[in-house]
Amino acid sequence: MTEFPGLPLALQLPELIAARQRVAPYVVTTPSICWPQGSLVGVLPAGTEVWSKLELFQQAGTFKPRGAMNVMLNLDPEVLGRGVTAVSAGNHAIATAYCAARLGVNAQVFMPKFARAHRVAKAEALGARVVLCETQTEMFERAEALQAKEGRTFIHPFEGPRTLQGTAGVGLEIGEQMPKLDVMLLPVGGGGLAGGVGAALKQLWPNILIYGVEPEGANTMTMSFEQGQTVQRESVSSIADSLCPPKSEPFSFSVCREVLDEIVLVDDAALRTAMNLILTDTQLVVEPAAAATIAALLGPLRDSLAGMRVGVICCGTNMDFADYLDIMAVAKK
Amino acid sequence: MTEFPGLPLALQLPELIAARQRVAPYVVTTPSICWPQGSLVGVLPAGTEVWSKLELFQQAGTFKPRGAMNVMLNLDPEVLGRGVTAVSAGNHAIATAYCAARLGVNAQVFMPKFARAHRVAKAEALGARVVLCETQTEMFERAEALQAKEGRTFIHPFEGPRTLQGTAGVGLEIGEQMPKLDVMLLPVGGGGLAGGVGAALKQLWPNILIYGVEPEGANTMTMSFEQGQTVQRESVSSIADSLCPPKSEPFSFSVCREVLDEIVLVDDAALRTAMNLILTDTQLVVEPAAAATIAALLGPLRDSLAGMRVGVICCGTNMDFADYLDIMAVAKK
Repeated sequence: MTEFPGLPLALQLPELIAARQRVAPYVVTTPSICWPQGSLVGVLPAGTEVWSKLELFQQAGTFKPRGAMNVMLNLDPEVLGRGVTAVSAGNHAIATAYCAARLGVNAQVFMPKFARAHRVAKAEALGARVVLCETQTEMFERAEALQAKEGRTFIHPFEGPRTLQGTAGVGLEIGEQMPKLDVMLLPVGGGGLAGGVGAALKQLWPNILIYGVEPEGANTMTMSFEQGQTVQRESVSSIADSLCPPKSEPFSFSVCREVLDEIVLVDDAALRTAMNLILTDTQLVVEPAAAATIAALLGPLRDSLAGMRVGVICCGTNMDFADYLDIMAVAKK
Repeated sequence: MTEFPGLPLALQLPELIAARQRVAPYVVTTPSICWPQGSLVGVLPAGTEVWSKLELFQQAGTFKPRGAMNVMLNLDPEVLGRGVTAVSAGNHAIATAYCAARLGVNAQVFMPKFARAHRVAKAEALGARVVLCETQTEMFERAEALQAKEGRTFIHPFEGPRTLQGTAGVGLEIGEQMPKLDVMLLPVGGGGLAGGVGAALKQLWPNILIYGVEPEGANTMTMSFEQGQTVQRESVSSIADSLCPPKSEPFSFSVCREVLDEIVLVDDAALRTAMNLILTDTQLVVEPAAAATIAALLGPLRDSLAGMRVGVICCGTNMDFADYLDIMAVAKK
């Protein structure tokens, strides 16, 4: 282990280890597997070895409770007692509901009216009050109004040191579960996962290469890198809806710029191909975001990572079987 | 760890540990998970805690290489060099093909003509020669003839000390990966998995209760227990085709009698319900045999195991998506 001077103090290893211990009673250590013989191994150049972190077995079906719980546990108890709120189309709403339920506090989350019914139902089953909104603007405005009125804390889906400290736990586990990797691939939405896991792995294995993977239609971090600043998008579009935030934020942006060696893009067709390959090789029905790193490995990174030991991650899935068939059916046309 | 005097010397812990080391280069340590919040936890009595061994991430998609590889590695090299043969409708054929390929020896396997195309293709992709037969009698006769003619070794799908030593590796891993269990549920086909894993766990945790789970239409081990001897069936029928051998065999029968506290039965409808619940909670598309222990936990054992820490196993899956939809579609009628 070594220090990584470009990172903020909040993301140095001792802080990450402390955060992991803090959230440990509320999250599970998810398994990692060496990718079994199968379609993936068959199409990669000889000698490429793939390890996968199966973070979809996390509580709430996503990595997001790691960050959200670390945020909540660092709140003053009196503040926490006033409840929490969040804005999300899915995984973060469910994670916020889960964390609030575990801590016995009230959660009210704002979701878009087009959110998949399964996700709304799961957040509600965990005890959250879900308010469906017409537009993104409405979601954020109502969440702000609720904070002002009731003193609730807004749990951000990807921004801030506490969030990234939490997601870094995925990286600490990878460091224990996988042999030393040459490369780690991480999906990038707002950069909360990529920044946190990247920060952990760059300190554990200083020579590791870290690639971010963004959907072609939602390349917000790529644009932010190019412009050297956070950006706000008018619209984004990808079947990987969990990787489609409308803007980047300063803390996660700055950490991603520090820890990501490069960002590559994958389109919807590549995501579907990867989803199908994951099903064939591992029997897992995953949402598009969870297939992003495999899509990158099959596509833009296939040849440049030949012969290396590569880590990928199935970061989470909250999607029912009907949703899966719906998404995949398009590919069969 | 303690000795368990009712077990043959071949299945005492030192032998199991030696077998695990022997096969280690050819199999992977599969992960275990604490069952995530979800449908299963919602329907079980409060306090019941479920851990699952995800053995479907094993090489060849099934636990079976653990036993088959231990058999092959104990053969005289000259004998091994003459090749192997096997009879199987699926998982064991694929496992035999995998092991033979890893050891560089020839495999010829006899499969029924009604074997699912995906399974035949997978055995062939691993380099085995697959011969499709009209009847079960023909499969066994041709395998015997091939042994006599070419000096090949017959790799049994579930019988014999070497096979059970290998499968016991699943139990040793459970002992390391899960907190001390009150109960372990194990699917029973020929008893190779249940006997081996049961032998390991009874020695690691002497107070553990071990339940076998058989399909109602293929309750061959239950009949063997009742009659106090191995039995040959005229016909068996279950959607869990991987748990449908036509007869029991003396070694695995005697070990199962020693280590199984009870056997419970599950019908096809219960298997489908369990398959659906596994998909909902873990995103895994599994074959019926891999859902047997969950079916037992939801059905006959639901109340008697209330409040206990229970282990289940997803023992393997070799089935493509079309097969899955085919099996599940019947349930929707």
